[in-house]
Amino acid sequence: MALRTEISSLGEFGLINHLTKNIEHQNVSTIVGVGDDAAVIDHFGKQTVITTDLLIEGVHFDLVYTPLKHLGYKSVIVNLSDIYAMNATPTQITLSIGFSNRFSLEALDEFYDGVYAACSEYGVDLVGGDTSSSQKGFIISVTALGEVLPEKIVKRSTAKPGDLLCCSGDLGAAYVGLLFLEREKKIFLESPEVQPDLEGEKYVISKLLKPEARKDIIRFFEEQDIVPTAMMDISDGLSSEILHICTQSNVGCRLYEEKIPVADDMKKAAYKFEIDPTACALSGGEDYELLFTLAQSDYDKLVLNEQISVIGYMTAPEEGRKIITKGGNLHDITAQGWNAFK
Amino acid sequence: MALRTEISSLGEFGLINHLTKNIEHQNVSTIVGVGDDAAVIDHFGKQTVITTDLLIEGVHFDLVYTPLKHLGYKSVIVNLSDIYAMNATPTQITLSIGFSNRFSLEALDEFYDGVYAACSEYGVDLVGGDTSSSQKGFIISVTALGEVLPEKIVKRSTAKPGDLLCCSGDLGAAYVGLLFLEREKKIFLESPEVQPDLEGEKYVISKLLKPEARKDIIRFFEEQDIVPTAMMDISDGLSSEILHICTQSNVGCRLYEEKIPVADDMKKAAYKFEIDPTACALSGGEDYELLFTLAQSDYDKLVLNEQISVIGYMTAPEEGRKIITKGGNLHDITAQGWNAFK
Repeated sequence: MALRTEISSLGEFGLINHLTKNIEHQNVSTIVGVGDDAAVIDHFGKQTVITTDLLIEGVHFDLVYTPLKHLGYKSVIVNLSDIYAMNATPTQITLSIGFSNRFSLEALDEFYDGVYAACSEYGVDLVGGDTSSSQKGFIISVTALGEVLPEKIVKRSTAKPGDLLCCSGDLGAAYVGLLFLEREKKIFLESPEVQPDLEGEKYVISKLLKPEARKDIIRFFEEQDIVPTAMMDISDGLSSEILHICTQSNVGCRLYEEKIPVADDMKKAAYKFEIDPTACALSGGEDYELLFTLAQSDYDKLVLNEQISVIGYMTAPEEGRKIITKGGNLHDITAQGWNAFK
Repeated sequence: MALRTEISSLGEFGLINHLTKNIEHQNVSTIVGVGDDAAVIDHFGKQTVITTDLLIEGVHFDLVYTPLKHLGYKSVIVNLSDIYAMNATPTQITLSIGFSNRFSLEALDEFYDGVYAACSEYGVDLVGGDTSSSQKGFIISVTALGEVLPEKIVKRSTAKPGDLLCCSGDLGAAYVGLLFLEREKKIFLESPEVQPDLEGEKYVISKLLKPEARKDIIRFFEEQDIVPTAMMDISDGLSSEILHICTQSNVGCRLYEEKIPVADDMKKAAYKFEIDPTACALSGGEDYELLFTLAQSDYDKLVLNEQISVIGYMTAPEEGRKIITKGGNLHDITAQGWNAFK
């Protein structure tokens, strides 16, 4: 039987000390870290970028099939993705957690192992946070800070007609991974003796449980001296995000269905559920890829990076927001993204 | 019957738009606010201070006796207090909330009224956040940012033997306020027809439900050219905080019981519960006053501010951390502060 240490045996300050005692700062911008009323940051002439996400058990994740270490990693990644989406470099995070007394110290250690793995991989420092009990479930709040030169900031609201519409990686896999895990959970609850059948679905499941943020794309922009005209990360499905850029930039668009990048493993997996891979990419969510628009003059630079797909172009607003299907038809793009309140 | 609008009728983006549409930035440091992947801040040569708190219904607050507007106000204040405790000026907050479907739009509006009232009173901008459903209860996560000149930052770890030990305002009232509200809640649950008897307890109850952060003290330091040698805010009771400063600064202290500031209204209220006002001040919590140490050479300046009490002095570490009682006895200071995990 695994060791179980009750959190109450440490008290709040003992717990914080236990969870943060091995922190070594990686950024010169981290002036004061954990252990005071507040942390102190100095981005030395760069601007500071800040984003935050609240993750709640039973709403955003299911501990039946989410390993705590992966959850810790992902909690950081989803915030770093927002920092990269501003064309910025993440530098610090704060992390607050609330947990019921069913959590042991060993469980929290697993979660923090994932948090620190993400911090190490992306070069960010954990500089503060809060720990609390909760009445029910596990609650995670991460705030991420980053730095960027003022002239490099990329917002959602600055796309222009004629710009190329691009995205990184491939889309829709995390959603299909979720379908598999939900199916296996249902089977397990009905027939606990049945072994899970996830053979061959490693790709889509790993995209759900252990996503990465696209620091490589931001580095590529830097190396190639590219500044996108607009950018955001894809967390609620491609459709929803394209509509955000169109609305905030006051432009229209043409999106080519055949250009939307989907992985072969995702396609095969989607067909097992008899769903359309394009629909997964458009409405699935949790991809944490980047969606961005570029001046046409940057087109030649893109061939250097096979992780970037040109999926369409921006138009004048009166031309509408349209998808051109593989069959050549023109349809309005509609957001069927996730509504957390339904 | 009051109007009730279901959150689900707006969707997440409609809700965010509703809650943030009237924001007007008060700080030049707010470059990009709500509406993109992340906010952008520029403290123009000052350093950035960051702190965060997680507040969970049933753990940190009870909606039976906490008006939502007060809760919104307090959620901001508890974070600003940490910013002031670094001798910094708060400039921005992010706010994430999770709420069950028992919350209507009108309820969230009340909560945000309190948030915006605090933002207005303290000159801070709401620049980002997250909204989510929760399985149970109301969850609030606030992150506050502030700015400070590097040479003005005051940490907990830099008190020196011989320094004066000081605090702002008066202590223990919020705790006694909590005792009253918990008593009335118990009576109400047992006998709903009994009217609450809180006459005369306005002071202690307002200290609990609508605390303020001590921006006046930080302004006084600025005006008088005082930089405390160490500082923190008093949120877990005076004893606990003094021990933090002693440990982190490696000093001892002498605290005079008779010098601990307690309000007359608090004393009267404490006696109704037959508890010692000093015990409330030492262990009560939620005061959000400032505890700080000063060089003795600053003593003369203190007479200008009746909101500051000198309550003792710091010593070499080997002299221990002691309280001198009204009877002249010397006792070890022990922290009986709140343990969120018990």
